[in-house]
Order: sequence, then structure tokens, then C-alpha cells
Amino acid sequence: MEQFTTIAEQRAWSRAHQREGKTIAFVPTMGALHAGHLSLIAQAKAAADVVVASIFVNPTQFDNPEDLAAYPRALPADLAMLTAAGVDAVYLPTVGEMYPDGYCTFIEMVGPLTDKLCAVARPGHFRGVCTVVAKLFGAVTPDIAIFGEKDLQQVLIISRMAADLNLPVEVRVGATLRDPDGMAMSSRNARLSPASREKALGLPRGLELANQAFKEGERTGMKLIEIVAGELLVHEGVELDYCDLVKLAGFKEIEHADDACVLAAAVFVDGVRLIDHVHLGSESLPVVIE
Amino acid sequence: MEQFTTIAEQRAWSRAHQREGKTIAFVPTMGALHAGHLSLIAQAKAAADVVVASIFVNPTQFDNPEDLAAYPRALPADLAMLTAAGVDAVYLPTVGEMYPDGYCTFIEMVGPLTDKLCAVARPGHFRGVCTVVAKLFGAVTPDIAIFGEKDLQQVLIISRMAADLNLPVEVRVGATLRDPDGMAMSSRNARLSPASREKALGLPRGLELANQAFKEGERTGMKLIEIVAGELLVHEGVELDYCDLVKLAGFKEIEHADDACVLAAAVFVDGVRLIDHVHLGSESLPVVIE
Repeated sequence: MEQFTTIAEQRAWSRAHQREGKTIAFVPTMGALHAGHLSLIAQAKAAADVVVASIFVNPTQFDNPEDLAAYPRALPADLAMLTAAGVDAVYLPTVGEMYPDGYCTFIEMVGPLTDKLCAVARPGHFRGVCTVVAKLFGAVTPDIAIFGEKDLQQVLIISRMAADLNLPVEVRVGATLRDPDGMAMSSRNARLSPASREKALGLPRGLELANQAFKEGERTGMKLIEIVAGELLVHEGVELDYCDLVKLAGFKEIEHADDACVLAAAVFVDGVRLIDHVHLGSESLPVVIE
Repeated sequence: MEQFTTIAEQRAWSRAHQREGKTIAFVPTMGALHAGHLSLIAQAKAAADVVVASIFVNPTQFDNPEDLAAYPRALPADLAMLTAAGVDAVYLPTVGEMYPDGYCTFIEMVGPLTDKLCAVARPGHFRGVCTVVAKLFGAVTPDIAIFGEKDLQQVLIISRMAADLNLPVEVRVGATLRDPDGMAMSSRNARLSPASREKALGLPRGLELANQAFKEGERTGMKLIEIVAGELLVHEGVELDYCDLVKLAGFKEIEHADDACVLAAAVFVDGVRLIDHVHLGSESLPVVIE
């Protein structure tokens, strides 16, 4: 597996492969890799001739310096996993390579995708995400880029950005992977103690209970949200950041659920921020419901 | 000369040429072409295997709807000029193709390049410029793009944007062309009556008189600015939008001139906005000084 730390090296490698007629699929990550990332890489391998991954903990998408400092980092293990997964090249830029002195350009989005959920809870977050993803696309020049469905709002925003800016990249989504207890895989889970994880399980369990209630006829958004809150707020150290019912078409908040909407939530569990969502009416999440 | 109106067609044409190993130089324009544009196209032809021009009057860079409505349009003549100049393809998107319903992504810049001169005089202007140029780059996928030096702040901003966002495009500058009377060529000049043009000539004449004063030892910014104002404000219907002394390194406003700075001005002449600048200490502009 090739390793590149500069834009110029990564781009030269990508361009050399594309000149040979090869297609590139790209999986951007912030490291601390888990099976969810590996499933995106497997999807990338099936989609293109060569696969590039990146590992970059992007400072411009963290609204909170403590959250940035605490973000899990595990480079040696990450590189071993990417090698074993058959990744052809990994792009590992430094912060200085990505944001040199005098850096001043940012990508911003207006409208329904960025006026709710994580966009409101984490001011500036998606500005940082859009900016770094466009920069990574510029360095890697992929034909296809794959993002995890767990970060649903992020995927929708990146897809919209790529279309709006005519970026010559096809954005694809990879399914959320879950542990047997129902927790959506996330690098941040590594920060949870066993006791914290017990509390955090209220998130997927609450979403799945709301999904069951929806299937049994419950359509009132507040009732569905109360079900999620009820599974979480019974614990000390748990704070619900948001829980909202959103229609996928137009990404609008709605008060009455239908079968083309998601219930999305963010929660702080002992200081660790976790997000998850359920498509109402979908197959059951693999969650143990007591 | 090929003509394309959709992103998909233009990109397919560009990609087909690049797969054959050919390089593309790109000259984006808003039409109403003049010899200044043709000099950029000549520079493009010398720089790459094939040349793409675009004509698109970009609504998002006009802060004033009347200015947008009044912007000169001359498509049949433009196409004849581009064909005669040997352009290989012209990209002519519609507003709907560039900004479909729900469009929501914009590129913004912070810092010294966008806190003065036209950035302050035309709020949102460079946000629109950055956004449309990135979109045009995405559609045309050029190796090189060429912009006129007359719009100095624009060139510096686009160059910075391309570097910051890792856009795989080399941004180059083409020299300002002037008519024999000293007026910098601009599509907007077509809107000047002969009487208005007489008044407008105070702009290059004032800049050149300031340049001469600089060469004779004048270093005080206010004095240099007064020379420019003195050539313009003697006429009815002339309004000075700004005149500022800016150091190129860091693009900072300065009070005392040195030989790495520009004197830049924008003026309304009978409602037509014109910009021009001089590098202090440079060769004389070809201006008749009475």
C-alpha cells in the first residue's frame, strides 16, 4: 500500500492511474477504523479499479477543541487494517499541508440541509466537512467516493455539494454497520466505558422502539421522539442533543410521520457525542429490546 | 468549434481529450468579447493542446439586478470571434443548468483578499465569482485556466481559491489590453456613450499621473489617490467607488507606497461601473496625458 502525505504526490499517483484508464474509488476517513469503514472499502473495491483511503482528523469541522483533542487516533492499527483490506494507497496529509498559513477558502451551504440537526448543534461543522471533502477530492481526484449512511446528514450534504459544484465525483452511500447489541459502529464508541456503552444503547433501542411504534400506527412526531428520549434520559450523564423527525424529500422537519422520513438523534453520553437514526417503517435494527 | 450547453456534454468532451493525453486550457468569459479576451485565448492556445472558452453571465456575482440586466450580451458576434480565434469548444450553460432548483452551495473567502476594494463595494460579488469559477472548472476540467489582469483582485482570489481547495487547475494571468486612448478593454465599455467615455478616460489618466508622481518620489497614499480623484471628479455623472493603495504581498491597504504595490480604483461613469489599477513604478500605461 502506497502512503502519501502531500497533495502533489497523491494527485500524481491518482493521475497516473487514471491516464492508464483505471477508475479510482475513494473512502475518506478520520481514522480509528472499524468494520464499518472496512465495509465501505469493500464496496469501493467492487466499484473501481483502485482504492484510495484517507486518514485526516479535520480540525475545521470540530466546533469544540476538546472534542478534537479527544477524537480517537490509532494510526498503526489503521494502516494495518487498510493494508489487509487491499487498499492501494492511503493519503495521510498533515494539518499544515491541508491548511497552510493564509488559508482562507471555505464551502458553505444554505437551506434545509444545513438549518437543522447536527448543523445547528455543531455550528460550522458542515462548513468544515464540505471544505475538507472538496479538498480531499481535489487531491485524490476520485471517480467515486463512498460515505457511511450513519452520518446521514453529512452524506446528503456532500452529495448535494458535489452536484452543486459540478465536482466530477460520484458520491455513493454505504450501509451503517451495527454491533450485535445494536450500536451503530463509530470511531467515537472507543471512548465509551462499558458503563457508558450500556447507557448509549438507549439510542438504537429508542430508535427501534419508535420504529416499532410507527409500524403499529403511531404517526405523531412528539410521541415517537418521546419514545427515544424515554430510553435515554433515564440515565445519569446522558443528554439529548436533538431528536427530530425529518422528511427525506426536501429534508424538512415534520410533525407527523410518513414512510419516507427518518427519526434522527444525537446524544451526549458521559461527554461522548453519538448520532444515529432510523428510517421509519424499515427493517428492524438488530437491537435487543427488553 | 463545438458548442455545449450541459455540464455532462462539456465534461465528456473534455475527458475524452484528456484520456488521449491532451491538455486543456480554459478561458471563462461573460461574453461581449473584445481583443482582451482574444489575447487570453491566444495565450491559451500557446499553453495547451486544446482550448475551451465559456460564455456565462453569472447572476450570483451581481449584487445589483439592474447591473445584471444591463450587462452587454452579444452571442452571435462572440461565437464568430471564438471560431475565428481557433477555440475548440465553447461552453454555454443556461442559468438553470448552473443553478438548478434547490441549488445551495457557495464558496466563500475570508481575510485580506476579500475585505477591501470590490469585495466591499460589491457585497457577495466574489462569493458568486468563486462559486461559478469552481463550477466551470468542474464542468470543463481544465489543466490551465487564464484570467485577465485587469480584474486583479479577482485573479488573486481565484488563484488562492484554486490553491486552497486543491483544484487540479493551474491559474494563469493574461496582461491587460488597452485601447490607444489608454482605456483598459472591458465588456462594460460598450455601454459608454462617446461623452461618457471621455469622462471615463480620467481613470487610466489619473492612474498614470499617479504612477508618474510615484516615479518622481511621491510616496504618500493620500496624495496619489487625490491625483486619481482629481482626474475624475471634475466631471458631472462621475462617482469614485473606491481608490486604494494596496501592497501585493498580503494584499494589505497601506498609507505609504513602495514598489510592490498597486493603486486600484473603481468608478461609476454615468451609471457604468469601471475598474482599473496601476502597479506603481511600472512601465507607463499608453495614456495620452494632457
